[in-house]
Amino acid sequence: MDRKGIEALINSLASKKTAMAGKDFFLTWEKSEEEIQATFLVADILQAMRKRNISPRIWDSGIAVSNFRDNSTRTRFSFASACDLLGLYVQDLDEGKSQLAHGETVRETATMIGFLTEAIGIRDDIYLGEGDRYQREIAKALDSGVASGVLPSRPTIVNLQSDIDHPTQTMADFLHLSHYYGGLDKLKGKKIAVTWAYSPSYGKPLSVPQGVIGLASRFGMEISLAYPAGYDLLPEVIETSRRQARESGGSFSIGHSMDEAFKDADIVYPKSWAPYDVMLKRVPLLHKGDHAGLKELEKSCLADNAKHKDWECTEEKMRLTGKRDPKYGQGLYMHCLPADITGVSCDAGEVAAQVFDRYRDDTYLEASYKPYIIAAMILLGRFKDPAALLEAALARNAPRILEG
Amino acid sequence: MDRKGIEALINSLASKKTAMAGKDFFLTWEKSEEEIQATFLVADILQAMRKRNISPRIWDSGIAVSNFRDNSTRTRFSFASACDLLGLYVQDLDEGKSQLAHGETVRETATMIGFLTEAIGIRDDIYLGEGDRYQREIAKALDSGVASGVLPSRPTIVNLQSDIDHPTQTMADFLHLSHYYGGLDKLKGKKIAVTWAYSPSYGKPLSVPQGVIGLASRFGMEISLAYPAGYDLLPEVIETSRRQARESGGSFSIGHSMDEAFKDADIVYPKSWAPYDVMLKRVPLLHKGDHAGLKELEKSCLADNAKHKDWECTEEKMRLTGKRDPKYGQGLYMHCLPADITGVSCDAGEVAAQVFDRYRDDTYLEASYKPYIIAAMILLGRFKDPAALLEAALARNAPRILEG
Amino acid sequence: MDRKGIEALINSLASKKTAMAGKDFFLTWEKSEEEIQATFLVADILQAMRKRNISPRIWDSGIAVSNFRDNSTRTRFSFASACDLLGLYVQDLDEGKSQLAHGETVRETATMIGFLTEAIGIRDDIYLGEGDRYQREIAKALDSGVASGVLPSRPTIVNLQSDIDHPTQTMADFLHLSHYYGGLDKLKGKKIAVTWAYSPSYGKPLSVPQGVIGLASRFGMEISLAYPAGYDLLPEVIETSRRQARESGGSFSIGHSMDEAFKDADIVYPKSWAPYDVMLKRVPLLHKGDHAGLKELEKSCLADNAKHKDWECTEEKMRLTGKRDPKYGQGLYMHCLPADITGVSCDAGEVAAQVFDRYRDDTYLEASYKPYIIAAMILLGRFKDPAALLEAALARNAPRILEG
Repeated sequence: MDRKGIEALINSLASKKTAMAGKDFFLTWEKSEEEIQATFLVADILQAMRKRNISPRIWDSGIAVSNFRDNSTRTRFSFASACDLLGLYVQDLDEGKSQLAHGETVRETATMIGFLTEAIGIRDDIYLGEGDRYQREIAKALDSGVASGVLPSRPTIVNLQSDIDHPTQTMADFLHLSHYYGGLDKLKGKKIAVTWAYSPSYGKPLSVPQGVIGLASRFGMEISLAYPAGYDLLPEVIETSRRQARESGGSFSIGHSMDEAFKDADIVYPKSWAPYDVMLKRVPLLHKGDHAGLKELEKSCLADNAKHKDWECTEEKMRLTGKRDPKYGQGLYMHCLPADITGVSCDAGEVAAQVFDRYRDDTYLEASYKPYIIAAMILLGRFKDPAALLEAALARNAPRILEG
Repeated sequence: MDRKGIEALINSLASKKTAMAGKDFFLTWEKSEEEIQATFLVADILQAMRKRNISPRIWDSGIAVSNFRDNSTRTRFSFASACDLLGLYVQDLDEGKSQLAHGETVRETATMIGFLTEAIGIRDDIYLGEGDRYQREIAKALDSGVASGVLPSRPTIVNLQSDIDHPTQTMADFLHLSHYYGGLDKLKGKKIAVTWAYSPSYGKPLSVPQGVIGLASRFGMEISLAYPAGYDLLPEVIETSRRQARESGGSFSIGHSMDEAFKDADIVYPKSWAPYDVMLKRVPLLHKGDHAGLKELEKSCLADNAKHKDWECTEEKMRLTGKRDPKYGQGLYMHCLPADITGVSCDAGEVAAQVFDRYRDDTYLEASYKPYIIAAMILLGRFKDPAALLEAALARNAPRILEG
Repeated sequence: MDRKGIEALINSLASKKTAMAGKDFFLTWEKSEEEIQATFLVADILQAMRKRNISPRIWDSGIAVSNFRDNSTRTRFSFASACDLLGLYVQDLDEGKSQLAHGETVRETATMIGFLTEAIGIRDDIYLGEGDRYQREIAKALDSGVASGVLPSRPTIVNLQSDIDHPTQTMADFLHLSHYYGGLDKLKGKKIAVTWAYSPSYGKPLSVPQGVIGLASRFGMEISLAYPAGYDLLPEVIETSRRQARESGGSFSIGHSMDEAFKDADIVYPKSWAPYDVMLKRVPLLHKGDHAGLKELEKSCLADNAKHKDWECTEEKMRLTGKRDPKYGQGLYMHCLPADITGVSCDAGEVAAQVFDRYRDDTYLEASYKPYIIAAMILLGRFKDPAALLEAALARNAPRILEG
């Protein structure tokens, strides 16, 4: 994309009505349609600038805090890359996996790490009913720090995965779809199958499928959610998705057959998650540090999982999908990675090796948007007029890599 | 503060006689009065520049080493924020909590991490009689590295807490007091109560109370140090404080009643610490890794502590303090944080929740100066003419955050 | 060195025929003579620019990944310093010491951490027969990421120590020799003794002695490799060194007497390593996590080691060396550090304290080149015309430290 193209994107961004500055990015469905679009636009602008060797660095100095309360290599690298691109220096708040004491302690810690901080990325997905709440508690503490004049500015929080949503992942997923199809408007009427899939591992969070339906339902898509009985998602997310689908002119249905969901689908997103009940039971055990109880729960959960090994994204199942895709002649396979690939990373998993192999590059591309999405969320959370800021960066025309 | 104000501070800094370049910041009482003032001035200038979005970045590249031999979230963030503000990139020298072998090994390690290093922050407060010594051993190794031509320049060491002093904390405390009262000269004649307080935890270092009396005694304050019998501080620090108080026209007294210390105090700094004897007994046990012995010592120490639960900063005690403060109508409460708050972070602690709550924002403000104090120490330790350097940064007028 | 001197080095660099861009630095003997020279030149230029306070920063933003599969303080700091000097921000890929699953997992991880990454430093020296292979597997994954359009550019890999070579160490060693003697051409005909030495520790990799003979043999040196029977090095490295020595007009011999190797040597490099057989036996035990087996192997290996305590670099042995050195009147002692020093870091070790002490500063200087060597490898691996790039950095004339 040439400078003119970048300028056009910036102009388009300038035309969006947004009120994201001073706020956080917790759940996509808390953001307006134009705010979602603005996020995609900023991500595209940042990537286009980088490709043309125009540095999108905004900060000459500044701290970003990462708080990973669950393991993560990919998201950690995405967050670090995003921050570095903007000029922020990441400091890890390493609390291990233990739940922080709530209340006063959170308030104080949030203030103490916030003095020179511009952005805070938090991953807290292992405690159903608590991850999102914890992030909002930090937000409240930051608000009161600003109100009392203790904090010079309000760091913006980016949800790097909670128990409810995984917006940096799903926004990257949909930016990929937007590029794949040539525009978000092309998603209207497309069928997406969001299905459970078998995995020999246990305790995978619900945030990805929840996030996918919560975002897909904004674009008028026909959503088929399918999972074995007992693997329900959070009721409020289902409710929100159903409402949004209605409002956007799409549809939302829940079934218990992978085949039916895959039938004629343009896109399939088969992915394992733990049953809702198990996740709920797990929380008090985690809090108590009851290792025997957790082991027992894992054992019974894995035994239940094993009854559904047929929930695998095989070539046979892929043949059920729609034939409209010009590249594949089949539905587009998506995954947040890493996938449990049968015969590769496990004996029996979410997806057949041949299927995964065919779509591998597209899943990698899908992942490649995450750093730009995170950077966009930070910019929009911090600045009232991101278009003017990006315009200034474009005009400055500083090379990201010195030119010899 | 506008540019004129910043220029006035820089001029004031230029007028101070200092000889800090090429040296380290170990103990406040090793620095002259003008050097203490210069440190406050640089901190104020850096903060004012940041507030006006003028980048005080000095280094385009450069390494800062952090060496935390005790856990720390707050100081870690302060050090990282300070370094980032100046353009330094922090590398952690992670040796765990084990004591480094001394002698040759220290000499070699100091050299190996020093090649491209500008500043080294060290926290080593758990070994009474050793932390300060260790820092000076590193300093000596760096000196000989420079003398032999192996190191291109002398990294400056910032004491991030030793067994003797905690200068980044106490300098932040007193910068807060300076702003609170409208100048360091306003401290003359003010009474400060530095007292022990009960905490259910054990083994807290002596460095904060020692640092507070070692610094307060520079400003002509009336210092009342109070603690239960047996909780003495290092004799040489007491001696130094007594002498300094005399020289600065203040006073220094030691008592064993919290009430008496609080009586008519303008400022109270109630804070737990471990008894001197216990800290001494602890060192060989730590070296031997004698967990049973440490457990035993902790048990007996906690039992002793528990006899002094009445050493709590309650509303009743606060009513004993002076009534001259226009904001509170009572003495100003200070703490280095985190405080053990009764009914909040523990059943019985250093301070009543209601008291802490009233002063919370001021304790947070107090903490907020630490990054600027650390940055000031680095600048003064590295450069002969910091005023000229800051003048140049002001003239350069580079925005810290790109302006859109 | 003044600007003219730096310009002369850049001109010399421009005249070298190299094809390093888009490639990795695994083994010195995979690089041509001119490429080795170019690496030394870039290192010298970077150091000279830094000394004159001219920032050699190339990147305004960019990620470097470090992957240390073995402990390291020195190399970690060297890599971080090198990256910071160029403007890269290091993200650690922390996988612990466990071997990564190979195949698909490596491919995916390499891609996921590669999106905004410019350089990857890998240390993997504990698994004989695997470290180098692992690095090449990452390289292949990155190649396919670029080929498929998933990665915007090819990060360059720097071998920070493998089971075969330790090029950042040995290139620093020889840059030191080049400066010490006034040019690489001065190495021709000089005798270097690369010998095993006794150490009470066990399992030291073979990469340093292998790397030293693999590089020394490029410069027409007379190489005497000596070790007790059973402490062989990798046959292919021996073969390569023998061939290179022949081609460069030097010689290569293997013996089993330290005295003979030291006789008339201009340079001695006595250093402990584990027997080849032990390293081979160790790999399956490490994979199985067979702690008892590893303990047993260590015990028998240490017992074998102990038979060779006379392999110590003593004053007596040093007196056997050549007398041509104007500074020492004896051979030049080298070590990659840390050395096991008799009576200092252990009861009996690789080198006598008096010997080490005399050469200490030179071994420190030797180590000081490592950051510049690493930075040079990164630059040459990423850019087709590093001379033009460095010329541009020189012309830009940005101060590394702001001038007041």
